[in-house]
Order: sequence, then C-alpha cells, then structure tokens
Amino acid sequence: VNNRSRNAARSAGARQVHKQQTYQALLHAALHLMEDQSFSSLSLREVTREVGIVPTAFYRHFRDMEQLGLALVDESFDSLREMLRSARIEPMPDKHVYRHSVEILARYVHTRRLHFRFIVRERYGGISVVRQAIRRELRLFVSELATDLIRFPDFSRWSTEDVRMVAALIVNAMFATAEAILDVPAERPEAETEIIQTAEKQLRLVLLAVPHWRSSTPPIGA
Amino acid sequence: VNNRSRNAARSAGARQVHKQQTYQALLHAALHLMEDQSFSSLSLREVTREVGIVPTAFYRHFRDMEQLGLALVDESFDSLREMLRSARIEPMPDKHVYRHSVEILARYVHTRRLHFRFIVRERYGGISVVRQAIRRELRLFVSELATDLIRFPDFSRWSTEDVRMVAALIVNAMFATAEAILDVPAERPEAETEIIQTAEKQLRLVLLAVPHWRSSTPPIGA
Repeated sequence: VNNRSRNAARSAGARQVHKQQTYQALLHAALHLMEDQSFSSLSLREVTREVGIVPTAFYRHFRDMEQLGLALVDESFDSLREMLRSARIEPMPDKHVYRHSVEILARYVHTRRLHFRFIVRERYGGISVVRQAIRRELRLFVSELATDLIRFPDFSRWSTEDVRMVAALIVNAMFATAEAILDVPAERPEAETEIIQTAEKQLRLVLLAVPHWRSSTPPIGA
Repeated sequence: VNNRSRNAARSAGARQVHKQQTYQALLHAALHLMEDQSFSSLSLREVTREVGIVPTAFYRHFRDMEQLGLALVDESFDSLREMLRSARIEPMPDKHVYRHSVEILARYVHTRRLHFRFIVRERYGGISVVRQAIRRELRLFVSELATDLIRFPDFSRWSTEDVRMVAALIVNAMFATAEAILDVPAERPEAETEIIQTAEKQLRLVLLAVPHWRSSTPPIGA
C-alpha cells in the first residue's frame, strides 16, 4: 500500500510538472509567434501546433486566448519589476547615474526581448482585455517608479501628483527607448549606442528641471 | 463630334470622381474597422464588404493591403502636420503656451480620432512595412518640431542633435497623451481634463530644463 501510494504521489507530481511545462511552453510559443504578428491575429491553433499538442489540450491550461494574453501581461511585468529592483540595488556612481539607468534598461530589453516586445506592441493592440491589463500594470509601474523617485531630496517638496507626472514622462521615454532598441537592425548594432545616448540625455534633461519646479499643490504633510 | 467628345470627357471625369470616391471609401472603411482590431488582422474582404464592392474591385485602387496601409500612413501624417501648422499660426499668449499647445493636440485627437488611433497602434503593429513607414514619418515629424523649437532664443546655443533629442521627448509625451485621450471612457469624459493637465505639466517641466542645459557638442556655425 505504502509503495503504491508513493508511486501515485510521484506520478501526480510528475503530471503536475508536465502540466507546468506545457503551460510555460504555450506562453513561450505565443511570444515567439508574435515576431511578425500581433496578439489579435494569433490563433489558438497556431500556438498549440507550435508546442506540439492538440488544440483541445489548450483548455487544460487556459479558458481562452484572452486568458493566455493576461498571463503574458503578468509574466512580462514581472520582468519589468525585476529591472526596477536591479536599478535599486546595483551601486550607482553619482556621476553616471543616467547612463547606468539606461544601460540597465538596455540590458533587460535584450535579455527579456520577447516580454518587452509584447508590452510595447500590445499596449496599443487590438485585444481590449489585454490592452486594459497592460494599462493597469503600467499605472502601477509608474507608481512604483514614483515611490523610488520621492526618496531623492530634490523631490522632497513635490506633490505626489507631480512626482507621478515625472515618473510617467520617464516611463514613456523608457518605452520609446525600449522600442527603438528592439528595432535596431541586426546589420547595424552600433545604432544602439546612439539610442542609449539620446535616452541618457532625455533622462538628464528631465531631472535637470526638477530643482526648478514648483508644485502648485502642497506636498503631503505640509 | 464635339458633343460626343465632350460627353466622353465628362463621363471620363465622372469615372475619375467615382474612382476617387471609392478610394477614399476604402481608406475610411479600413480606419473604421480598426476600432477593435489591428491592421494585421484586417482582411481585404472585410474592407470591400464594408464599402459594398466586390473583393476583386479592390485591385483597381491598391496593389494589396500593405499599399492601403501606406496610404493610411500618409493620410494620418497629413493630419499631424496640419496640427503643427495650427500650433504655428494660432496666436499663443506667452503665459498659456503649454496649455494652449496641449489643447491643440486634444482638439486634433478628437477631430482626427481615426488617424491618431491608426498611428498610435500601428507604430508598434504587426505589419512591418506599415510600421517602418510610420517610424520614418515620425522621424520627419520630430525634425519638423525641432525646426520649430530652434527658433526660440533658449535653443539658440543648442546642438541640432540635442534639439532633436528634446523634440523626440516631446513627441513621445504627445503620443502618450493622444493615446490616453483616445482611451477616455465615454462615461467619464472629465478624465480628459486630468490628462491635459498632466501633459501640460510635462511640457512645462521639459522646457523648464532648457535654459539650464549645456550641449556638449558646439552649435552649428560655432
């Protein structure tokens, strides 16, 4: 009995691992297939064919393609949060803080290429549920960056609303930079240097204005 | 003979007018159908059905869907250029220049809603030819804005490259604003006021930094 239940448990565990692997394979296949198409034109059949399972097996993992899209949003924003954490914990020499921040971004765009491409594209994509989820996550992401910014002395007298305004400006510039890096042609890799320089200057320019800004609404606690 | 050739000319003219009308109707139908889908998922059949012509009649106007996409890029950027011209010729009270600029943008997002939506979405869309055309037009658009900026005294000592860097930052913020306005839910129109205020502050912040910037490369003619 003991042996038999052990075997049963082991094979249930193996099934669970296998299920998890197929789940990941479906997410990965979908991301890969979006090289030359948008999520809205991606079909369930294409995704299952890529993974090598029958179409009906899809429903063991997702209710429909929209649910798969939402799982991709979660996974992609996990990558973005990891990037913010890196920026927080890596030592930043004061002098090169802008350059270093943009380099962290560039590094993540390369190592998490498919996630960045997914967010950049589907943020304006045709599937409303996915688009709304990305917008929601982006608002959270802007808030998280605002929380990081507010620790700097220059922002101490700013209203929360205005810090968010700056964070949103930076996140937009960041996404435009990510998109430009994603689009660097393989035969002209040096184009990335120019993109990084521009992004660094934009970040420097925005933060140059910070000490000169007057928030019209009083800061919290004032 | 005279009458007959006059009639022939007239009916050739009428055919030309009719052809032009169908051309415009195809462009318009495509823009409308993109309410809930991306250009890459739009089919030639859907577009011709919307216009009420047989699918093969499409080829009298466009070689393929990509060519129609490129025509939409041209038409949409005409709207954007018209907006820049408005900003140039409308009298701008110094005090409200940021507010006024953002209001011109908001007005154009409403009157040219379908054009803005097309550019905002297909800029990152799945059809490479269309995406590349939008990127090209956007670079031109950034240059045109840079040419407008360089007339202001604050930019007189800036390198061309750095003025373009600021123009690109403004255009990105502008597009993010356009996208946010496009997404205002019909039941909460007051959300637009908040978007406009944030955009105005972002523009003010960026231009606040301008007098404090030092271009590292010398300006033209220096």
